Amino acid sequence: MYIYDIIEKKRQAQKLTKEEIDFVVKMFTAGEILPEQMSALLMAIAINGMTDGETYELTKSMQSTGKTLKFAFDTIDKHSTGGVGDSTTLLIVPVLACLGLKVSKMSGGSLGFTGGTIDKLKVFEGYNPVIEEKAFTDMLQKIGCAIISQSNEIAKADKMIYALRDRTATVDSIPLIASSIMSKKLASGAHIIMLDVKYGLGAFIKTKEDAVKLAKLMVKIAKKDGKKAMAVVTNMDAPLSLGVGCNLEVYSVLQAFHGENSSLLELSKYLSAKMYALATGESFNEAKKKVTEVLASGKAFAKLKEMLEFGGANLAVFDNPDGLLISDYVLKCNSKQGGYITGIDAYKIAKFVQHLKNETDNDKQKLRCGILLNKKIGDYVQEDELLLKVFSAKKVKQEDLEMLYDAFTFGEKNNTNHKLVLEVIK
Amino acid sequence: MYIYDIIEKKRQAQKLTKEEIDFVVKMFTAGEILPEQMSALLMAIAINGMTDGETYELTKSMQSTGKTLKFAFDTIDKHSTGGVGDSTTLLIVPVLACLGLKVSKMSGGSLGFTGGTIDKLKVFEGYNPVIEEKAFTDMLQKIGCAIISQSNEIAKADKMIYALRDRTATVDSIPLIASSIMSKKLASGAHIIMLDVKYGLGAFIKTKEDAVKLAKLMVKIAKKDGKKAMAVVTNMDAPLSLGVGCNLEVYSVLQAFHGENSSLLELSKYLSAKMYALATGESFNEAKKKVTEVLASGKAFAKLKEMLEFGGANLAVFDNPDGLLISDYVLKCNSKQGGYITGIDAYKIAKFVQHLKNETDNDKQKLRCGILLNKKIGDYVQEDELLLKVFSAKKVKQEDLEMLYDAFTFGEKNNTNHKLVLEVIK
Repeated sequence: MYIYDIIEKKRQAQKLTKEEIDFVVKMFTAGEILPEQMSALLMAIAINGMTDGETYELTKSMQSTGKTLKFAFDTIDKHSTGGVGDSTTLLIVPVLACLGLKVSKMSGGSLGFTGGTIDKLKVFEGYNPVIEEKAFTDMLQKIGCAIISQSNEIAKADKMIYALRDRTATVDSIPLIASSIMSKKLASGAHIIMLDVKYGLGAFIKTKEDAVKLAKLMVKIAKKDGKKAMAVVTNMDAPLSLGVGCNLEVYSVLQAFHGENSSLLELSKYLSAKMYALATGESFNEAKKKVTEVLASGKAFAKLKEMLEFGGANLAVFDNPDGLLISDYVLKCNSKQGGYITGIDAYKIAKFVQHLKNETDNDKQKLRCGILLNKKIGDYVQEDELLLKVFSAKKVKQEDLEMLYDAFTFGEKNNTNHKLVLEVIK
Repeated sequence: MYIYDIIEKKRQAQKLTKEEIDFVVKMFTAGEILPEQMSALLMAIAINGMTDGETYELTKSMQSTGKTLKFAFDTIDKHSTGGVGDSTTLLIVPVLACLGLKVSKMSGGSLGFTGGTIDKLKVFEGYNPVIEEKAFTDMLQKIGCAIISQSNEIAKADKMIYALRDRTATVDSIPLIASSIMSKKLASGAHIIMLDVKYGLGAFIKTKEDAVKLAKLMVKIAKKDGKKAMAVVTNMDAPLSLGVGCNLEVYSVLQAFHGENSSLLELSKYLSAKMYALATGESFNEAKKKVTEVLASGKAFAKLKEMLEFGGANLAVFDNPDGLLISDYVLKCNSKQGGYITGIDAYKIAKFVQHLKNETDNDKQKLRCGILLNKKIGDYVQEDELLLKVFSAKKVKQEDLEMLYDAFTFGEKNNTNHKLVLEVIK
């Protein structure tokens, strides 16, 4: 078997066999296939596609390059394809643990402009997400939930392939995204998987059509591997929470636990209920009631603290949430015009926050960088009324601010119909 | 400008600007663009194509990465896209020099399974094809012709890009072939260019359609650059000469000079006449007459010797042409069946000869490896009559011989219509 022939085959849009896919993944991981050959193949896949069968084989081959975790009990995991102000994990995990499920959440760091759960966990000083399988199992048994870092022992091929895709403009390919995500999810040992597939300005996937395609493909792969799985396709045009940036997103999470209405809370409740229903077979309405109850009673909030404390975090943040709003520079930005907010471009917001982070080398200062919106989509804002606050390590330049203001669109009427969940795929 | 965005653009089948193409070629040549990024772009080009305008810009960018030769007088050059038993250069060059043209032939080595003029020149011991521009000019002025090696100073990007294409299954892409050939041809300083675009079993281009496309594109590029140019599209299903392999091909060239009828002689005369007509404006028939005359009179043959001697070769080969048929092993192969020969697969023949060469590490022995056909297409062969001789450094294995026999097809009638020249593109 020669890599040349396999590249040529995919260049001609032909289907690769299980053996060919296995050969490519194993040989590339072993350093026997050159990066330039792999990237040529990835480009051929990105342009000519793969069948669902090929994508499944690619997923399984990638999974086989690392360890697959095994638990003696059923666990549930949830994965978001990446968004802006998307911290649902910090709400969903303790909620489901309170309802008796074992939530084995394996998270990654930030990808591109999107935020990553592992970065946000740094706000809780001392929490160690890098733990071994035995400690993970122990934490799940004692607390009922754990958020841990994607182990390097999991789907080793993925890291190498992703690094290559990231340099060669082959990131947004549906079979490549599906195999990347699912190789890790199948290896993470969860028996039940919920996939939150995001589309829109602040997501990697720009159209509903592609998001639905990806969601269906991933559910198909999970089921073929014997998992219970479901996907929801959700809109990511505007940031999910008022805060964007690590400290600010944790601030928004705490606000949500305390009942502040937001897309973040809405989606977290929705996903929690869907996941609970999927795991137990109960009706969605019944599940929704239970979710609402553990949030309202404060049980879920207590569970979050319990999990973080067990993981080594000091809980100072909880005693003084306003400490999350401290930064070297805090700039109040007022609206330049009056009107209903019809759009907040999550991509532009995320790029602005990324820029703020890049202004400092200090990791603690990076956590503090971000924005906190004072208004959300559909709200009316008066001219010169507070629109948002910027938290930064350096004084913000006027030209950068213009970029930020550029994220907002206004209208005379509140005719936005911001639908969060587009489709559910079982 | 970022390579990522340029790759992304071509992945989306969009047109690249002159500036973008220039950026890619210069940065890649300078080592500033990673091989895996370049190969991803090459694959996107191979699949999504390039406009003629883009291909022209790519050609010019590649040309600009090296030197461009300049002569004080008009010179003519000829290029074949590569075939099997294709030694027309050794006939055309002296013929045209005899007719008063300055023939500045810049040649490459073997590419893949095809033969290269530079390798065949090694048969003439002492001939040095690696010379500087000044010596090249001097030789052209004194002899009227020179066959020299592609200088490393010419179109530097091409070598790097070709090496990458060769590993990543992006060799047979029309814009990439056209820019590779034409960047070197435009840099070689010739004012008049004849392109012999080969298609068929023993060529890189398999179909007439692709060959015509490539031929038209290359002529367009040459003309846009102010050259006189013409292309012929010629069939390469069967070897052009009875000999295949360096010594054997030179043997066939000598036979052709002495009047032995073959496709090699036919095509050499045809191309010489076309080139002379293109350079002088005379009619093709008039040109053909002159070509026939310098061949018949022995003037062309004398010119070949003169050129080789000027280039440092000892002329022993000419005193004893049969010495070219000496090899450690000479095996006579008789036909296993009787009938008219309807096909001789040039690719299978070439791969067999390549295999013979690979059996030895001795460069002199490599030159001696090859086959000499005793029959050509359309000939009748009796069962057990001599079909060909194999010249090798080691005893030929039976299984390898089977591969060789497999190159021949037979029929009951001589109904082959082996048309050599398919189309002329001006």
